Amino acid sequence: MKSIEVCLSPALFRYKSTSSDYTVVVIDVLRATTAFCAAFDSGVESIIPVSGLDELLEYKNKGFITAAERDGKKVDFVDFGNSPSVFLQSDLKGKKLAYSTTNGTQAIGLAKECGNIAIGSFSNLQAISKWLINKNLNIVILCSGWKNTFSLEDTLCAGALIESLELSGQFFRICDASTASLSLWQSSKNKLIESVQLASHYKRLSELGLHDDLNYCFQINSSKAVPIWDGNAFGDVSKL
Amino acid sequence: MKSIEVCLSPALFRYKSTSSDYTVVVIDVLRATTAFCAAFDSGVESIIPVSGLDELLEYKNKGFITAAERDGKKVDFVDFGNSPSVFLQSDLKGKKLAYSTTNGTQAIGLAKECGNIAIGSFSNLQAISKWLINKNLNIVILCSGWKNTFSLEDTLCAGALIESLELSGQFFRICDASTASLSLWQSSKNKLIESVQLASHYKRLSELGLHDDLNYCFQINSSKAVPIWDGNAFGDVSKL
Repeated sequence: MKSIEVCLSPALFRYKSTSSDYTVVVIDVLRATTAFCAAFDSGVESIIPVSGLDELLEYKNKGFITAAERDGKKVDFVDFGNSPSVFLQSDLKGKKLAYSTTNGTQAIGLAKECGNIAIGSFSNLQAISKWLINKNLNIVILCSGWKNTFSLEDTLCAGALIESLELSGQFFRICDASTASLSLWQSSKNKLIESVQLASHYKRLSELGLHDDLNYCFQINSSKAVPIWDGNAFGDVSKL
Repeated sequence: MKSIEVCLSPALFRYKSTSSDYTVVVIDVLRATTAFCAAFDSGVESIIPVSGLDELLEYKNKGFITAAERDGKKVDFVDFGNSPSVFLQSDLKGKKLAYSTTNGTQAIGLAKECGNIAIGSFSNLQAISKWLINKNLNIVILCSGWKNTFSLEDTLCAGALIESLELSGQFFRICDASTASLSLWQSSKNKLIESVQLASHYKRLSELGLHDDLNYCFQINSSKAVPIWDGNAFGDVSKL
């Protein structure tokens, strides 16, 4: 049996108890990890997560396509914001993407310490679950949150992933955060949109008029992408 | 209207958004804040939270009664551990208590920055709600957790407190953590013991045989204590 632990914020990652042979699943439902999956669905070959905008500009100058948002809004010089809908409308076959977001790339930066990183969202729930069950390592689910605070939508997605993983009979929860995430998911899943409408970041994006993205980010299993870190970039291993 | 915010771990307190005219309600259901209330119920005049055991020994030498636990167990040289049941069986009228615990006093230490600190538990839920409604300041609920990680029982108590406060019509939630706490409480309250039996620290104390404490800590409204910080110590303002 392998363990499942949930970190409800990047600020709690340092306090996790799992320390060997684990995969970190980074979740940023609104919208980075959903957008990663959408970009792969549109043919992107690889995604490099980038922290700062200066570094992102260097990638742009090297010929990468670039994506970045700050506080929910697209940054000036980039090709894409953080919108999965826009990625889905684009043909990005074979393109290399450099990507910087408010919360998602911070969480990915922390996860690099362990080497095994997977990208989770509602859109690729089944795809990533299958990969994790097959991989059969301990799992740390890292919710990206909002500027180090707790996000409802990431926690619900963590709960949905736990439910899916536990169906395999291979995993057990080792922390209260995983039990609470599962409980929140199970009491919300039959009214998911109603539940996430209470989330701060849902409200923030709704006020920005991003309804297509909000609809897409809560569509379960719309993507087959399995974005996995290879040491240099994320690739979609579902295509191997 | 005043705001309610929840910090699910002391490590998240620095990221709270509330910054003016607020009371911090510290919750450590198992067992520090429940024990605070029990100690006041048994006549204690004041409680000084102490971080280190060296400092606690100095208070002992000055004539204070002392309480301390580390990892759920009573420390050698003190009069009391962290057991509300044992406090309730003692006559402590007029005594001054110095108190150090694994998680509770850490959370109280953080809360001192704002000056207004109240102590919450399931046992004094109604008493502390009434005081907070009357006080009518913004509220930050600080869950003590377990070594900076999320605790289910503290989060459920935060949710119960929010439910009680919102009945007044004076408060609104400003963060996802407060919404999640309320949701977890509302789906657990009709099966509270069953729900908290899933909590890591419940299991830990159950293995230590502390069944009297576990029963007491989830009895709602068994205490009338309203422990409030006066700048030097906690006193029970219900007795004023």
